[in-house]
Amino acid sequence: MAKPSALAEPQAAPAYGKPLQGWRLRLYTIIFEADTRAGQWFDRALIALILSSVGVVMADSVQSLHQRFGSVFSALEWGFTLIFTLEYLARLACVRHPWRYATSFFGVIDLLSVLPTYLAMLLPGVHALIDVRVLRLLRVFRIFKLTAYMSEFQSLGAALLASRRKIAVFLMVVVLVVVIMGTLMYVVEGPENGYTSIPVAVYWAITTMTTVGFGDITPKTDIGRLISSLMMLLGWGTLAVPTGIVTSEMTARRQGAITTRTCHECLTEGHLPEAVFCYHCGARLPPWRHSRSIPV
Amino acid sequence: MAKPSALAEPQAAPAYGKPLQGWRLRLYTIIFEADTRAGQWFDRALIALILSSVGVVMADSVQSLHQRFGSVFSALEWGFTLIFTLEYLARLACVRHPWRYATSFFGVIDLLSVLPTYLAMLLPGVHALIDVRVLRLLRVFRIFKLTAYMSEFQSLGAALLASRRKIAVFLMVVVLVVVIMGTLMYVVEGPENGYTSIPVAVYWAITTMTTVGFGDITPKTDIGRLISSLMMLLGWGTLAVPTGIVTSEMTARRQGAITTRTCHECLTEGHLPEAVFCYHCGARLPPWRHSRSIPV
Amino acid sequence: MAKPSALAEPQAAPAYGKPLQGWRLRLYTIIFEADTRAGQWFDRALIALILSSVGVVMADSVQSLHQRFGSVFSALEWGFTLIFTLEYLARLACVRHPWRYATSFFGVIDLLSVLPTYLAMLLPGVHALIDVRVLRLLRVFRIFKLTAYMSEFQSLGAALLASRRKIAVFLMVVVLVVVIMGTLMYVVEGPENGYTSIPVAVYWAITTMTTVGFGDITPKTDIGRLISSLMMLLGWGTLAVPTGIVTSEMTARRQGAITTRTCHECLTEGHLPEAVFCYHCGARLPPWRHSRSIPV
Amino acid sequence: MAKPSALAEPQAAPAYGKPLQGWRLRLYTIIFEADTRAGQWFDRALIALILSSVGVVMADSVQSLHQRFGSVFSALEWGFTLIFTLEYLARLACVRHPWRYATSFFGVIDLLSVLPTYLAMLLPGVHALIDVRVLRLLRVFRIFKLTAYMSEFQSLGAALLASRRKIAVFLMVVVLVVVIMGTLMYVVEGPENGYTSIPVAVYWAITTMTTVGFGDITPKTDIGRLISSLMMLLGWGTLAVPTGIVTSEMTARRQGAITTRTCHECLTEGHLPEAVFCYHCGARLPPWRHSRSIPV
Repeated sequence: MAKPSALAEPQAAPAYGKPLQGWRLRLYTIIFEADTRAGQWFDRALIALILSSVGVVMADSVQSLHQRFGSVFSALEWGFTLIFTLEYLARLACVRHPWRYATSFFGVIDLLSVLPTYLAMLLPGVHALIDVRVLRLLRVFRIFKLTAYMSEFQSLGAALLASRRKIAVFLMVVVLVVVIMGTLMYVVEGPENGYTSIPVAVYWAITTMTTVGFGDITPKTDIGRLISSLMMLLGWGTLAVPTGIVTSEMTARRQGAITTRTCHECLTEGHLPEAVFCYHCGARLPPWRHSRSIPV
Repeated sequence: MAKPSALAEPQAAPAYGKPLQGWRLRLYTIIFEADTRAGQWFDRALIALILSSVGVVMADSVQSLHQRFGSVFSALEWGFTLIFTLEYLARLACVRHPWRYATSFFGVIDLLSVLPTYLAMLLPGVHALIDVRVLRLLRVFRIFKLTAYMSEFQSLGAALLASRRKIAVFLMVVVLVVVIMGTLMYVVEGPENGYTSIPVAVYWAITTMTTVGFGDITPKTDIGRLISSLMMLLGWGTLAVPTGIVTSEMTARRQGAITTRTCHECLTEGHLPEAVFCYHCGARLPPWRHSRSIPV
Repeated sequence: MAKPSALAEPQAAPAYGKPLQGWRLRLYTIIFEADTRAGQWFDRALIALILSSVGVVMADSVQSLHQRFGSVFSALEWGFTLIFTLEYLARLACVRHPWRYATSFFGVIDLLSVLPTYLAMLLPGVHALIDVRVLRLLRVFRIFKLTAYMSEFQSLGAALLASRRKIAVFLMVVVLVVVIMGTLMYVVEGPENGYTSIPVAVYWAITTMTTVGFGDITPKTDIGRLISSLMMLLGWGTLAVPTGIVTSEMTARRQGAITTRTCHECLTEGHLPEAVFCYHCGARLPPWRHSRSIPV
Repeated sequence: MAKPSALAEPQAAPAYGKPLQGWRLRLYTIIFEADTRAGQWFDRALIALILSSVGVVMADSVQSLHQRFGSVFSALEWGFTLIFTLEYLARLACVRHPWRYATSFFGVIDLLSVLPTYLAMLLPGVHALIDVRVLRLLRVFRIFKLTAYMSEFQSLGAALLASRRKIAVFLMVVVLVVVIMGTLMYVVEGPENGYTSIPVAVYWAITTMTTVGFGDITPKTDIGRLISSLMMLLGWGTLAVPTGIVTSEMTARRQGAITTRTCHECLTEGHLPEAVFCYHCGARLPPWRHSRSIPV
């Protein structure tokens, strides 16, 4: 069973106070639970609505489509906003502690989904942020074999969390390198070659070290190109070196075991080249002549 | 033994009905089987024809060659189409259930290989899709030590299939990120800086996160460049962080053995985590408690 | 326990000579140690000052900000320099062997942090190298759960050190390849296509093999594009091939266990390669001979 | 001891015929062996000469340097060529079977090192291929702790050789994908958008899938950009997906072991979630309640 996570909804029956009843309970079951048929249909309809509303916003941003269907898009947009507002109010109404829902992860996303349309009446540029609704798609996990996906999602998250110290140190080193290198390139190349300020040079250093290489800014001087080459090898090498090391370690471990050392007593393999006794049964291993074996 | 896969041909003798006889059996053996000499020569000739036909289409697309050899290419193209059509009809003719072949993976490819030339008489632009024939090259596995390559191919496929849930979740997260980031950049940079619509901005976000970085669209504003930097580090880090973690874990496992497991008799270190006896002196090792050992 | 590293400060009480006393000891405790409250506040103030001074240099490089706040930045810059100079002198004063500190890693960085401002009075272009101060941020490890980060940092460093031979060979091969390929492209494409000299062509070869791909120089001839394609596949493949091999080996190991090790008592499969007893029924497993097992 | 490899020199005393004597033996010892002082000095001098000659060719390709020092470079170039020719003739003279040396790997490289200069008298453009000499740098392994580097070099090579089938299949799939995708883009975008022919489109497909992304050719149509996005995700995902899988497998294996299942008898950890008996000592494990454990 998956651990309760940040993506779970608040419980219908908390440890204290009287449970939901009547229409509130029925509404809650449809909206928050996915066990009943109505609940599943609600979720599917909701996802369809979310995908459509995101699609409408994306289409409306394309000039040619905006000119042809602008008014249709506006109407649809208001329709979606009304439906989502009603849904949001319904959620607040049927949950025992509305404030707890409003401040939860999903609660905030749901609010941010409807707010831009209202704000857009006042500030036009904000209109596009309606795409925040796409975050609501995280709800899709509740319908399609939820626990399976949830655990995959959590396993990826757990792996990252377990290594957060390493990631933090790694990022610190990367930031240090790009700031130093960016400053160096600013001094070497100068604004006339595109490196207009240190922040811009740092931006260039990031495009180079992450091997993205837009090409909007490129080194023109010889020293600049030399430093760039070092940065490129560093950024690419950070990927290539570990993969190469891991691969030759895995191959070495297998090659060494299979072709050379077998314990006569227990037939275990996988002994280190320098081993004298079998790690498995303690018997003495036959001597290993390097010259007939795989190096490393 | 390699599992029967989607790439296998339908059997000559199905579980029911009477088996093939006479000329049909002979034809079947040549076309579908690679045991006989004729069968092998058939396959080699077929591959040579496929490669040549693909080469002709590629050459014909080059303007200079098209002007010089256009008519030669056309003639060759019709020759190839006739041969492939005859081959396709021969396959249908000698298989017990023609419909089953026509709807199988290879059957569909074979049909798509000849259809474009006929359609091209009606719709000129389709002519180049004749390269679909290159998919027929998957047949090459049948000649060259088939089972060996098949199992390699299948092992790669099996690894992917076993992890399909993880891959699905991963892709969902990537799509989520590029849509959100793309929309953000559209709002921040705007059409005057190249981000003409949200779909275009999402296309840019993909070129940035996958570290391709075409450079046809680049951020011009400071905030835009800051967001880009974050995206680049995210896309590159998704590759760099796991490789770094795996590498230091492999090293740690070895180091961990070295720093914690000491043989009481001879004081040797470097025992495998699962070792029971000291590889150096044969004495029994104290049991290894993981919880006190990993340095990371 | 983390090994003493190059990032550690020289000890307060060396093995010989009389220990520090009085104000020198008090100063030393504040500056170099992080145990006391004063010591921790000193370190936090120092990091805040370092970050601010780096921020000022970066802001000063932006033309628009330089014009508006140039004099403010100059004043701040001199302030920082004075504080850092005082701090440097204080360090020299309260350490038992000033020369040892001055030549240590941190000592050199601290000197390089203040020198550029003085040199800048003579050579204007050097002003930006004040960013070297950012290297002083390595001190941040002393406050925030130092040992934890230190060991992460060291584990990454240890992994690299252990593999230095492999890295050296790998780099030698990469340099060889880019020089050969660069020369080839210079001969094939020539200066009229952007490859103005062999060093420039080698720079292009590095951008291509590390998959950065700026695009400031691109191949125009057919042969050039063919060679480029090979280089791109080589550079990308150096990352893709090992990761693919490692992944299918890990999957194979699991699959391998499943298909070969069967418990004679309960017929369960899926035992770890190193298992001695069946995890399902407790019976002793037959020994596992590697040579008959790996499917790939 | 490292296995004899393709990089080894032919033996001084073959299994048949009379061994070398006198001046031939002395010359052989200096040139081919690295045991004597003279032999080591010879190798170091040779490497210095090779590096210098490569440096001269690279410098001569830079227009500004060519104009200033052109004649100096020419003179040096002829000097190097004469020395290398003498050395080549010396090698042929002191080896028992000159033909065997001339056709060996190093023999061919040595010949290709001197030939271009002579050919250059007839065909000017070939002059730059003198950089082939840089391949002679492979001899550097003979001086600097040879065996250590040799084994590293061989381990990398062995890992590749062991996986040659997987690499072949992988490359076949990549070629298939870029040809199909390239043709598709040629049909969709057409010559007016830069995709002038199918080979050019395939070149573009390679720059995209390997995430190099030069940007000399970019998709302009919506469908084109959609196909590009898929290709970019495919090329980048081929790196990201396996690393992610491997990392979460390694973390899962460790997390699962450390936090949940310990055998009460032998204190071994690392038991599969579904295990009932300890694989190490055969004792019964305490039941594992999933709800309190790490998923995956």
